[in-house]
Amino acid sequence: MSSYSNYIDGNKDRMLDELLELLRIPSVSADSDYKEDVLKAADKVAEHLRNAGADNVEVCETPGLPVVYGEKIVDSSLPTVLVYGHYDVQPADPIELWDSPPFEPVIKKTALHPDGAIFARGACDDKGQFFMHVKAFETMMNNGGVPCNVKFMIEGEEEVGSANLGWYVERNREKLNCDVILISDTGMIGPDQPSITTGLRGLSYVEVKVTGPNRDLHSGLYGGAVANPINILNQMIASLHDENNHITIDGFYDKVQQVSDEERAAMAQAPFSLEAYKASLDLPDVWGEKGYSTIERASIRPTLDVNGIWGGYIGKGAKTVIASYAEAKISMRLVPDQDPEEITELFTKHFKSIAPSCVTVEVRPHHGGEPYVTGIDHPGFRAASKAMSATFGKEAIPMRSGGSIPILSLFERELGAKSILMGFGLDSDAIHSPNEHYGVRNYFMGIKTIPLWFEEYVKEMG
Amino acid sequence: MSSYSNYIDGNKDRMLDELLELLRIPSVSADSDYKEDVLKAADKVAEHLRNAGADNVEVCETPGLPVVYGEKIVDSSLPTVLVYGHYDVQPADPIELWDSPPFEPVIKKTALHPDGAIFARGACDDKGQFFMHVKAFETMMNNGGVPCNVKFMIEGEEEVGSANLGWYVERNREKLNCDVILISDTGMIGPDQPSITTGLRGLSYVEVKVTGPNRDLHSGLYGGAVANPINILNQMIASLHDENNHITIDGFYDKVQQVSDEERAAMAQAPFSLEAYKASLDLPDVWGEKGYSTIERASIRPTLDVNGIWGGYIGKGAKTVIASYAEAKISMRLVPDQDPEEITELFTKHFKSIAPSCVTVEVRPHHGGEPYVTGIDHPGFRAASKAMSATFGKEAIPMRSGGSIPILSLFERELGAKSILMGFGLDSDAIHSPNEHYGVRNYFMGIKTIPLWFEEYVKEMG
Repeated sequence: MSSYSNYIDGNKDRMLDELLELLRIPSVSADSDYKEDVLKAADKVAEHLRNAGADNVEVCETPGLPVVYGEKIVDSSLPTVLVYGHYDVQPADPIELWDSPPFEPVIKKTALHPDGAIFARGACDDKGQFFMHVKAFETMMNNGGVPCNVKFMIEGEEEVGSANLGWYVERNREKLNCDVILISDTGMIGPDQPSITTGLRGLSYVEVKVTGPNRDLHSGLYGGAVANPINILNQMIASLHDENNHITIDGFYDKVQQVSDEERAAMAQAPFSLEAYKASLDLPDVWGEKGYSTIERASIRPTLDVNGIWGGYIGKGAKTVIASYAEAKISMRLVPDQDPEEITELFTKHFKSIAPSCVTVEVRPHHGGEPYVTGIDHPGFRAASKAMSATFGKEAIPMRSGGSIPILSLFERELGAKSILMGFGLDSDAIHSPNEHYGVRNYFMGIKTIPLWFEEYVKEMG
Repeated sequence: MSSYSNYIDGNKDRMLDELLELLRIPSVSADSDYKEDVLKAADKVAEHLRNAGADNVEVCETPGLPVVYGEKIVDSSLPTVLVYGHYDVQPADPIELWDSPPFEPVIKKTALHPDGAIFARGACDDKGQFFMHVKAFETMMNNGGVPCNVKFMIEGEEEVGSANLGWYVERNREKLNCDVILISDTGMIGPDQPSITTGLRGLSYVEVKVTGPNRDLHSGLYGGAVANPINILNQMIASLHDENNHITIDGFYDKVQQVSDEERAAMAQAPFSLEAYKASLDLPDVWGEKGYSTIERASIRPTLDVNGIWGGYIGKGAKTVIASYAEAKISMRLVPDQDPEEITELFTKHFKSIAPSCVTVEVRPHHGGEPYVTGIDHPGFRAASKAMSATFGKEAIPMRSGGSIPILSLFERELGAKSILMGFGLDSDAIHSPNEHYGVRNYFMGIKTIPLWFEEYVKEMG
């Protein structure tokens, strides 16, 4: 281990510079205007894998954006670990809320990151985290080699629901064959409290459009006599929650797994201050489903949120117009055993059923994702627990996250392997938000922890 | 009269070209980016007044955009008519819905305009209509002169609530002193059914902002645990109407004048086909306040419409974010005797009172306007009725409009004169909408009718 540490400490500056260089590429998968940059990022990842010592590195074509593959097969009798991550990032807007340009990374000290944090889109989600595995791999390769077989699959469409990763995995089952999948795309409870994510929420994402008159109308001449699509959309969206903030879609909760009182009691043990939580977000008060705690609302319960809405005149000044249509992006976070496709169907059916006769309604489904759970008895989890506990000097604890990694269920189905979510980010890293950042210390703690995980995992499997 | 007609027919092409030239100037008052164009339009209007024979023409400075003044005083013992109009226009967006560029006027035939209509922003509202008065004035000046004193006051801020016209009028009472104000900024019932607007609705316009967390959040990590400002704004807006589409703001209807059964019966006589109305807007059904007809809902009843709403991610693709805030532009059309300032206060008080504790709410008032009514016994109305009936060969009928001309009440207060609303537009002209247009025939019918109005008015006052 100390040889690992010495190597990492001796190459600190380069390992940091290489990440910053990768963060300068605006690989936004949601916006086709950035396609060239996404492809550039893929080539860069392949180059890093080659330099780190991976064999058969290739940028694999898909019907969408490419997947970067690389491997190091040392002994077919040893276990095989598939490292998964993504080199694409969320859109950066609202740009104006960033303190520094999203694709010009800068390192600044913060209260939670006294050693400094890297501010850039993708710093934590997921360039900073998947790149730890590339650097950890390099470290092992330069210090006696990897203790078992390693494969890398770094995709470019995670932020748009891994649109084509299923297509790729189904066509490469042999090549991707593995015993476990190791992923760093989640967070831990606190800077000094290591934790491993054992559950994730699923996702159903739709875009809705409510259309009234065939053109924008003068609100004086027509106001009061024709349905205003914005008002109607607002009424329809408002009706999706009841007074207890339960979701009103028929059948929405039918397949929701009730979490045991024991597990809820265990969750309640996790260090959490409601006051600190509210203060960190400048919130006058929290909100949520009646009968559940804030931690539960954000992890073991399904949700419905409008992610974007637009209609009518949104420029400067006042325009007295009745818009022809209004649109919204709506996502639902799902929990075991809700099925995204079924929920999308239930939403569509319900949303159309509540549309008044004075408008027409369109529902366009985006990507979805299944909820996921990994048992704490899995050898990969035990290895993660031991490795993190060692580097942080504190017992790592299991936790459920509210986020989604839609592809995990497909991995299990196609490759028969469970995914271990050993993430090093913090909730406060502002992923998907302006000023996303990732602690420099977290980055290097990750690079140091991953080789330990491999050692522990080989022992567990031995 | 025939001398007028001969002159107009002999100068048709020029009179049309001059309007098209004026329409090419994007004088959008709501957007400060167009300020230079607004000023350019003001100078052009002044130039046309001078060429038509007006004296003391000036572009008058205000704290905002300028007012163009001009006059022809022939005999102080004769009545004085103040012509009011505006050279500013609404913003053109959504640009993509225009069939031709909004500031590159083209003439196309339509079902309602077999002689062709001018398609351009401002074609009808109000460049096409106020310019008829300039051309009618030119016609009179070149055919024996005007039969009474005429003053012109053409402003550049009507589309932003005549923000500074009050300031101007208060400081120029003497100069603007008149017996009646003549305005063409409204419509008539049909291409062959002349009508004169006797009532207008008032306006209260506010911008609201609902703020939740201090930054955009990941909808997976926070979804369900913090209030989503878009969902909350939607709920607040939805609650502003009840199941009968009555507005729920406390005290909102207190000062609404109940229109007599007689007047409601008279309104019901106006030619109107609900099926044709729905067909012209491709509406599956109409909407509105229970207990009132479509015509009543759009004229004698107050309304509340969202004119624009925005929040969260509105770009391409899917972004799983909870926005920090959401905003909306909301306007209310008012009827006698509602007071815009009082309604704005009632709205603000009510909107803040319904805000849940999990968000903060901001209400920013925009301009307002008072409702207005002119009696059908006014000499100016009788003159309009006779003039229109003569040119159209059909009895002109009085009507109430749902639109607003906020400044009329101020004219009455400051100048002690009533306004006559003799407009030549059609509801189908799509003012404030993409593809705004104005019939070439309507334009020339206006130029021919206005000199007759002056003759009739002088007789009425004789």
